[in-house]
Amino acid sequence: MRTVSVIGVGETRMGRLADRSNHDLIREAGERAIADAGIDKREIQALYIGNFVGGYLCRQNHYGAMASEVLNLGSIPTVHTEGACASGGLAFRMGYLGILSGLYDIVLVGGVEKMTHRPTETVTTAVASAMDFELEAMKGMTFPANFAMIANRYFQEYRNVKREMALCAVNAHRNACLNPDAQMPKELELEKVLEASPIASPLSIFDCSLVTDGAAFAVLASGEIAGRLCKKRVVDVVGTGHAGDALTLYGKKSITSFAASREAARQAYGQARLGPGDIDFAEVHDCFTITQIINTEDLGFFPPGKGADAVAEGITALDGKKPVNPSGGLKAKGHPIGATGLSQIFEAVTQIRGEAGPRQVKKADVALTQNLGGTAATCVINIFRGRD
Amino acid sequence: MRTVSVIGVGETRMGRLADRSNHDLIREAGERAIADAGIDKREIQALYIGNFVGGYLCRQNHYGAMASEVLNLGSIPTVHTEGACASGGLAFRMGYLGILSGLYDIVLVGGVEKMTHRPTETVTTAVASAMDFELEAMKGMTFPANFAMIANRYFQEYRNVKREMALCAVNAHRNACLNPDAQMPKELELEKVLEASPIASPLSIFDCSLVTDGAAFAVLASGEIAGRLCKKRVVDVVGTGHAGDALTLYGKKSITSFAASREAARQAYGQARLGPGDIDFAEVHDCFTITQIINTEDLGFFPPGKGADAVAEGITALDGKKPVNPSGGLKAKGHPIGATGLSQIFEAVTQIRGEAGPRQVKKADVALTQNLGGTAATCVINIFRGRD
Repeated sequence: MRTVSVIGVGETRMGRLADRSNHDLIREAGERAIADAGIDKREIQALYIGNFVGGYLCRQNHYGAMASEVLNLGSIPTVHTEGACASGGLAFRMGYLGILSGLYDIVLVGGVEKMTHRPTETVTTAVASAMDFELEAMKGMTFPANFAMIANRYFQEYRNVKREMALCAVNAHRNACLNPDAQMPKELELEKVLEASPIASPLSIFDCSLVTDGAAFAVLASGEIAGRLCKKRVVDVVGTGHAGDALTLYGKKSITSFAASREAARQAYGQARLGPGDIDFAEVHDCFTITQIINTEDLGFFPPGKGADAVAEGITALDGKKPVNPSGGLKAKGHPIGATGLSQIFEAVTQIRGEAGPRQVKKADVALTQNLGGTAATCVINIFRGRD
Repeated sequence: MRTVSVIGVGETRMGRLADRSNHDLIREAGERAIADAGIDKREIQALYIGNFVGGYLCRQNHYGAMASEVLNLGSIPTVHTEGACASGGLAFRMGYLGILSGLYDIVLVGGVEKMTHRPTETVTTAVASAMDFELEAMKGMTFPANFAMIANRYFQEYRNVKREMALCAVNAHRNACLNPDAQMPKELELEKVLEASPIASPLSIFDCSLVTDGAAFAVLASGEIAGRLCKKRVVDVVGTGHAGDALTLYGKKSITSFAASREAARQAYGQARLGPGDIDFAEVHDCFTITQIINTEDLGFFPPGKGADAVAEGITALDGKKPVNPSGGLKAKGHPIGATGLSQIFEAVTQIRGEAGPRQVKKADVALTQNLGGTAATCVINIFRGRD
């Protein structure tokens, strides 16, 4: 099999960017990734872009052709991928396959989402399209409600980890303070988090990720070309995994451990010939604080039911033994849905290159990114390693 | 390079299917394709599904995970692809790449769209998300208006072909009368078409494709496995092409010949080592009658400006030398947007197998399908050949 490498990354600042259109976000992040790769645009052979709810919130679909025109990429083939919050991860995965297949040598992958211009109720309705509309959303289910049930079930199977969930949020915000692209670079006090009123018990507003505008892009190349072109440290994709699960909450065998994550992790670790202990740091999909705890268990970092202990012991902190979400994560860096999977990869590559500044993780040779869609119905996992 | 083959196809009837949900459509077409392939569901390793405006019209996204649950496919990876009216073609293309890359041996690809339950104005707004919202749709552009400009420009560069456009419609409806899945199996009289009031001059209602509910699926396998498994005639994908162009109408170099089609055709013919003369019949993207005429020129079937003559001479009729859209096409079989690319492939495979009944094309060994998205901003072309 061919090696696939990341040779350029770029992202926008994340946040409530009222003055920036879809075009602006794509232009900024896309041009940054291309400049970072140091390639001529004419070398890009295909474009894959993730977006989740632009059709509903912006009346814009066909993001592939749109981004190609904005970035002036000519007549290259484009695909818009969608898999709810994993839309960006899927764009990366399709770009990866494009190179793996031998069809392309250099591709651009990205993600974009513009959400903050619409009222909260509209955003909530739009986001609910990531679950089964007929069987769940139409009955009144929302994502905070779904993940509140997951948290309560977790409490029942293991123990109440409300305090550790709060610590996830505190940690995320602490890291975000060191990330110039973060939406909420603001310290959180543990007591304030613990005292907050629930919005879907046991989740309070502090347990939920943000509504964010933003974009992130990456340039992928075959390993051989990367070695020739890349002026910075080459980052190889050494393992990838992609799996699914029932879309509905009630269709899953377990809701305290996600089958899609476990299967995607199995694939990625197998391909990389690495285990959880080999991962220096990870960007995991913390759409809710409870999700982060479950994810770190599904990824094999900690035993089932022990993810919360690891948070309490500081293991997942920036200076801990297994830093999780040095970027600030979906919780504090932000969650521009279609771009999130790529923003995680932006962080992985930035850290592996040693370019993360004050939030630099000490040992950053091997990184894992995990991007979840819907109620853990889609999962894309990648393992990256810096070339020596 | 590996060969990729189609080993099963299935589609629903196309039309105003008020009693059928997205679930129903997916279940029916998906199960038919799987049964047609004669495989066990557990052999399917990945699912790619096209849908265009479900997020807007049905408040449903995440079609990959949804379809996987509906079809009971377990934890396989899924991707929802979107490229406006080429969404289904992209699902096929991604499935093709999945097998070509060596990652999978058997994949399910499909498309679905549910449109007729919403008022026409809502559908028009939704469909306009296939163009650039900020630069076109927000200014009041609609697709009939865009293609009316294309037709007028074509008239200016060549000659007025309103009569031949009408003949395209008459032809499509004649073919649809022989297709049990067609939405409008009803003969059209040429005079009636010519006398119709314009909706965007020179286009009348009879020049426009239909608003349709429907789904279509196909099972793809590596050529080797296909040879072993397939009880019917194996249909090999001998050439594929995928290209793009500016999303905006005004961003294109020409609007009377589509760069995306020409480039995708170049790729597909090159891979297949075939030329336009080798194609026995084609399913082309006749979103408007003028588009069919332009497409047949871009595909090299007829010289620029001569596509209309070919229609008038009966060359594109079912019993002509180069049958175009034996299914009835988008115009009369219907245009369930996300499913259209797959429905074209359903027809190609059905014809190549000699299973098309009264609409069977005489010589049907080599077929071409062409699926366009937006104002010809995305194009996917495939060439299929029946194995001897």
